[in-house]
Amino acid sequence: MKGLVAAVDLGGTKIYTALADQSGRVLAEVVVPTRPWEGAGAVIGRIVETVDQVLKQAGEQGPPLALGIGAPGPLNAATGVVYQAPNLGWDNVPLKQKLEEILDVPVVVDNDANLAAMGEYVYGAGRGEEEMVYITVSTGIGGGLILRGRVYHGAGYGAGEIGHMTIDPNGPRCGCGNYGCLEAMASGTAMAREARRLVESGGGRAILEAAGGDVDAITAREVARAAAAGDGEARQIIINAGRALGIGVANVINLLNPALVVLGGGAMQVGPLLWDAMEREVSRRAWAPARRRVRLVPAELGGRSGLMGAVALALQKVRGEKPPNPVV
Amino acid sequence: MKGLVAAVDLGGTKIYTALADQSGRVLAEVVVPTRPWEGAGAVIGRIVETVDQVLKQAGEQGPPLALGIGAPGPLNAATGVVYQAPNLGWDNVPLKQKLEEILDVPVVVDNDANLAAMGEYVYGAGRGEEEMVYITVSTGIGGGLILRGRVYHGAGYGAGEIGHMTIDPNGPRCGCGNYGCLEAMASGTAMAREARRLVESGGGRAILEAAGGDVDAITAREVARAAAAGDGEARQIIINAGRALGIGVANVINLLNPALVVLGGGAMQVGPLLWDAMEREVSRRAWAPARRRVRLVPAELGGRSGLMGAVALALQKVRGEKPPNPVV
Repeated sequence: MKGLVAAVDLGGTKIYTALADQSGRVLAEVVVPTRPWEGAGAVIGRIVETVDQVLKQAGEQGPPLALGIGAPGPLNAATGVVYQAPNLGWDNVPLKQKLEEILDVPVVVDNDANLAAMGEYVYGAGRGEEEMVYITVSTGIGGGLILRGRVYHGAGYGAGEIGHMTIDPNGPRCGCGNYGCLEAMASGTAMAREARRLVESGGGRAILEAAGGDVDAITAREVARAAAAGDGEARQIIINAGRALGIGVANVINLLNPALVVLGGGAMQVGPLLWDAMEREVSRRAWAPARRRVRLVPAELGGRSGLMGAVALALQKVRGEKPPNPVV
Repeated sequence: MKGLVAAVDLGGTKIYTALADQSGRVLAEVVVPTRPWEGAGAVIGRIVETVDQVLKQAGEQGPPLALGIGAPGPLNAATGVVYQAPNLGWDNVPLKQKLEEILDVPVVVDNDANLAAMGEYVYGAGRGEEEMVYITVSTGIGGGLILRGRVYHGAGYGAGEIGHMTIDPNGPRCGCGNYGCLEAMASGTAMAREARRLVESGGGRAILEAAGGDVDAITAREVARAAAAGDGEARQIIINAGRALGIGVANVINLLNPALVVLGGGAMQVGPLLWDAMEREVSRRAWAPARRRVRLVPAELGGRSGLMGAVALALQKVRGEKPPNPVV
């Protein structure tokens, strides 16, 4: 073993596993479905299988030096216990302990958004910037903070929950029960909801057409397609989402004065309309000295941010760099 | 000199200077008016005089080991240059360099809100909590972040600008030009503005009475007095401010997952109505795991938070603990 590490990005639908060398070069990777309904034990077993598979693929015998793994939901990065992960159906699963028992290698765990931030910081758009905020805009909105060159966890490993920042106290209801959360106003889910509402009130023809006439098939992708074809209603939905996103980004800039904000996630793909609306709102609302200092850039690693963050975390472990250890 | 340090809290109206020992005990203190209209040179001269005065008061001859000073406005804590301080009329004043030339002791500078945070962290309500947010609610709203036990400056010494976080995109206009900033909705100035608006539209009798019938004399204090006497309109103004404050605090909790939020500043004195409205909103809007982890507490040092932070900063300097040095 020439100092190889394994990395896993554990999601609700797929397990994405890689083997990487000390420079972070990926030697082998594999994706399998998560099938969370089979229970935590089966999912953990499948993670172990994928580690065996990437070793085999790369022609390696021994175990890796360490395994880094990103998991959804609130968790304790020191003990590696996943407190709650609704899309896995997990409740207090000792992920680190279980994997260490089976694999007999050191396992390091962090949440998926923090590892995506770390991936972009070490290997992607954030290289060289020690004060960096990563925001992922997808079905939900999440974030990770790199402060003074390290993931910032807060007092209870919960830092970075940017999706539930209130953007408009009278805004739409969020899945969390509150009103006007960023996630309820700027996520892919929020754009789709606005589009469906439009169709149900008799508008949104072009969007409905893009969805083949099926209102339930409308996602942010169909909104983006209609907007790209010049549809005014679709454009307005995207602009509204971009504005809300811009308020959220401006708030983060005002609070943290980062050098860089990296934006990733599938819903950022709806196009420049979203980006431009966001940027305009940031220009209006961010405190001038902080605004002049910051750059807004798209993520570079796409769907691999979290996986590469898990590589970085495992390499950190191998090098003896301890993650911060807040009192929980 | 038994290891004494000098500390200055430089404000737009007064210069507050102290001499302290290694344990942070204040041996002498003095307050003089700032008189910013006399120019930066005169103000710096007056700071030097106050240092001489506290030394004399304490019966000391030699210079202190270091001087810590808190100044308003965006500044560079490494070079000690105050970029802009509207209430001093300053523009690129090399405060550290000037004071070091005259006093011939090491001078360390930070902004007033950061030092108030540090004062509460080292000597006040924040003792023992390494992840702490300090918020001051006064004529404006400012903040300072203690992250991993140190003041967090961000990439350009601008972190903590919580007052310009957008709370309601359609809210009232802020002094900064935007709409719905926390400062425009929850500061003492905001409460007074709402009360005057009420009087001008024919309401607010009890508040006007508390101000001796002079609408221009209405401040948050008069609103508080009318509210304490049971006036419904005054109570509503305070409750609205408390709600806005609660949204801001919840946003900070969601983003940073602190162990403690310390609230200080004159406008927090309007009474429990403000505090309770804030707490209710935080309970509604903060992400559950982060909310369970955090305590909200009033500042303990009152008008001395910033001064004591300057003491802590000077002692840090003496002990060779370097403040973080972001690339600006």
